[in-house]
Amino acid sequence: MSNIDTVRAFIDHWNSGDMEAMYALCAEDVTWHNIPMEPFSGKPAMRAAVEGFMADVEGCEWEVHAIAEGDGGAVLTERTDAFRMKDGRRAAIRVMGTFEFGADGLITAWRDYFDMGEFQREFAGG
Amino acid sequence: MSNIDTVRAFIDHWNSGDMEAMYALCAEDVTWHNIPMEPFSGKPAMRAAVEGFMADVEGCEWEVHAIAEGDGGAVLTERTDAFRMKDGRRAAIRVMGTFEFGADGLITAWRDYFDMGEFQREFAGG
Repeated sequence: MSNIDTVRAFIDHWNSGDMEAMYALCAEDVTWHNIPMEPFSGKPAMRAAVEGFMADVEGCEWEVHAIAEGDGGAVLTERTDAFRMKDGRRAAIRVMGTFEFGADGLITAWRDYFDMGEFQREFAGG
Repeated sequence: MSNIDTVRAFIDHWNSGDMEAMYALCAEDVTWHNIPMEPFSGKPAMRAAVEGFMADVEGCEWEVHAIAEGDGGAVLTERTDAFRMKDGRRAAIRVMGTFEFGADGLITAWRDYFDMGEFQREFAGG
């Protein structure tokens, strides 16, 4: 599986809600960094953060507008991450993210760049 | 010049302060969209916005961490855009940006994703 294929599968797993398949694509020492927040280091910290983050989310509809792999193997994405909320609202965040990989092809770093104000308005609004 | 070469030259011109060479790489109908703000459409609007944006800036030191070209020719970047301010401070914004191109190789769209809070803290701080 190419690094781009891995990122596409990773996003498909978020969208289908198959979180164990999503975690299986991440290295044990993965770092998840939503750039405006502090990073989460290691899969246990990522799991705890995802659980908190998804508490009010019914499902994900993340759309990839552009995806490309650089010389060093990093994959860069431009996306709109939409969320169906449990209260019936819909949230959408405009985001770009970089993914890095270990020799085994697993994701070692995931950095997402977005406006924290937009995130807060979208998740809190309604 | 490949699209990646164009983006590298574009950023070099920002860093050397050669703004006319920078504008020469943009199409007349270029759209510049700092995602947390409203987009600027057309080179005259871009020029006016750049002048306002750079009023307190002595010089740019933008660093490209990753750059990649996607299937459709768009170029995706992960950067730290540092600025030497006229009052002696230094500002730095963590950013990802996408560039799109016309058939003539000129930049038709530039979208930068960053946290507006970080931008305001960095530009207003000190």
